[in-house]
Amino acid sequence: MKLNCTKENLKRALGFASRAVGSNTTLPILNNLLLKTEEGQLKISSTNLEIAIKTWVGAQIEKPGEITVPARTIVDYINNISEEKIMLETKMTDLLVKTPSTQSVVKGLPAEDFPLIPEIQDGIVTTVNAEILAGAVAQILFASSFSETQPELSGVLFELGEKKLTMAATDRYRLAEKIIDLKNGGGEKKAIVPNRAITELGRVLSGCKNDAEILISDNQILFKVNGVEIISRLIEGQYPDYKQIIPTDFPTQIKLGVKELTSALKLSGLFAQENNNVELDIIKNKDAVVIKATSQRAGSNTTEVRGVVEGEDNNIIFNYRYILDCLNHLHNKEVVLKVINSSSPAMVVPEGEDNYLYLVMPIKT
Amino acid sequence: MKLNCTKENLKRALGFASRAVGSNTTLPILNNLLLKTEEGQLKISSTNLEIAIKTWVGAQIEKPGEITVPARTIVDYINNISEEKIMLETKMTDLLVKTPSTQSVVKGLPAEDFPLIPEIQDGIVTTVNAEILAGAVAQILFASSFSETQPELSGVLFELGEKKLTMAATDRYRLAEKIIDLKNGGGEKKAIVPNRAITELGRVLSGCKNDAEILISDNQILFKVNGVEIISRLIEGQYPDYKQIIPTDFPTQIKLGVKELTSALKLSGLFAQENNNVELDIIKNKDAVVIKATSQRAGSNTTEVRGVVEGEDNNIIFNYRYILDCLNHLHNKEVVLKVINSSSPAMVVPEGEDNYLYLVMPIKT
Repeated sequence: MKLNCTKENLKRALGFASRAVGSNTTLPILNNLLLKTEEGQLKISSTNLEIAIKTWVGAQIEKPGEITVPARTIVDYINNISEEKIMLETKMTDLLVKTPSTQSVVKGLPAEDFPLIPEIQDGIVTTVNAEILAGAVAQILFASSFSETQPELSGVLFELGEKKLTMAATDRYRLAEKIIDLKNGGGEKKAIVPNRAITELGRVLSGCKNDAEILISDNQILFKVNGVEIISRLIEGQYPDYKQIIPTDFPTQIKLGVKELTSALKLSGLFAQENNNVELDIIKNKDAVVIKATSQRAGSNTTEVRGVVEGEDNNIIFNYRYILDCLNHLHNKEVVLKVINSSSPAMVVPEGEDNYLYLVMPIKT
Repeated sequence: MKLNCTKENLKRALGFASRAVGSNTTLPILNNLLLKTEEGQLKISSTNLEIAIKTWVGAQIEKPGEITVPARTIVDYINNISEEKIMLETKMTDLLVKTPSTQSVVKGLPAEDFPLIPEIQDGIVTTVNAEILAGAVAQILFASSFSETQPELSGVLFELGEKKLTMAATDRYRLAEKIIDLKNGGGEKKAIVPNRAITELGRVLSGCKNDAEILISDNQILFKVNGVEIISRLIEGQYPDYKQIIPTDFPTQIKLGVKELTSALKLSGLFAQENNNVELDIIKNKDAVVIKATSQRAGSNTTEVRGVVEGEDNNIIFNYRYILDCLNHLHNKEVVLKVINSSSPAMVVPEGEDNYLYLVMPIKT
């Protein structure tokens, strides 16, 4: 392999591709990136055997070929180069990286030892707006479970329809659901996509103004965004039928400013470090919620947030971090908090939006 | 104690005062801040028994008094308050903190249990420009030793004269020295000031345009900057007589761009992770230095930096991080690297400045 490319393009591609690289001690080649010439471009791939990332760099190819090199070494080296033109050339299992003022020999491993990254052949193809998908990822991902005891919860549900994509995540204590419009394609399909793949998807989507293409097969999913491909296995198992637990009638609703509620929960939360519990007293004739927290060690706090209450007085205890998680990902000015009673799930919905909901279980004392 | 003050003033004072607070498990009151009314102001103090910090907040005092409260709780709480007017009131050993929308009871400890912070009575007083002192602190501190085997090296030497202050630090592998002008005062005095106090001094000086006052007694030093006082014990012992080891004649000198040398050392350094050694080949007829590093694991690098060489060819091996430490704190465009041979200390001096020098030992192979 021998080729010339620009630093900026190479740096960008390495940045994305290296995201699937962990630090694998049992299979050291997984710490490497596969560099391979393909149809007049340099393809850079990585995999951790669960997800794979592929990306392409425009290059002047003098001699086709392939090699793998440690991700960390090549990424750090290219990031620190100050010149724009870079020449890459394989020398046996080493990669020579050369600019006018600096040259390195990076020790590599043979490309043929790199695991095969499967290609998805069949499946349902759909296209969505990348910015909208990015927003949905942010509003959903945090509610998924990062524990391994229930594998199907350690991912995000993608429920594809003819015109809509419903994304949902839950860790059994809270549930987030977002519905977005499809631009093209569609069809009936359910898939549970691992957290890790969605985290990487979020990064690749960041700042992207184009469309994102999604291809779902029976056991894999492919996202194509901005010249980057993320391929992930799907999580096997049945996703809980969460729709049946979403309540529809709430005797109390309070509309609150997102900024004011966030600030109040942070203040009270400082006095809830032992168990994260804060108590919310919704008071109709004050048109306000009074938030209280008490700590054996630190002391106690009472904070009042003015809002608009509909329905009756109510009282409920939450893990304040669960509410903050949701508020931190809203771009609206106001939210509506809907409460049944102190032992039933409450709902947070952004004011004036009906494609997102967040359900949170109260703490029962 | 009962008083009113503004959030901004209180937040700023808490930010500085809490810097001397560690997490002390044997003497929990050291995790607290002492709040005390004094001459129409609120004084906030902290100490870790080595250094103490005092700062003042303008306040409307209704009732004088004092209390100690955990630094972390009060700092986090005040930082998160969105209103400007804050009322503080002691209730037995608790502190009530109140704004129109939020109020907290912060559990405290009695002020009389707080260690006495000594006042410095006698000593030599001097004044320096705060910005110049800030620059000197940055250029000196990193060269001091953070190990405890030689206590006198775990500090910065302050050598006061009639018109100049010489600051120096060494960890035996490198030495930094800076000389700054006094604005007022002065006199013959030597003091070794602990790293930790100089680190805090650096923070307090940051962005300060006023003068800094320094008071040195036989066993303590006091810095007064921007309404903040840092009091530190001095390190006992004899500071090494470093002046005698500073060479004066160098057969090779090379003038280099700071940015170019920094970039080259970072590149080569990526291939020097095992021992940090990079080799510098100074070549007269190329007017350049060629920097080389080799790693068993990662590969090798060669980077050339053009400069202006005076004198003969030379070759020397450095810990590249030691050179970067110095370059990172220079604001000049160019440096001069002065070399004797591969086994003698080399010198880095900023081009066109004669009040700073950095001496570094080579690696002998």
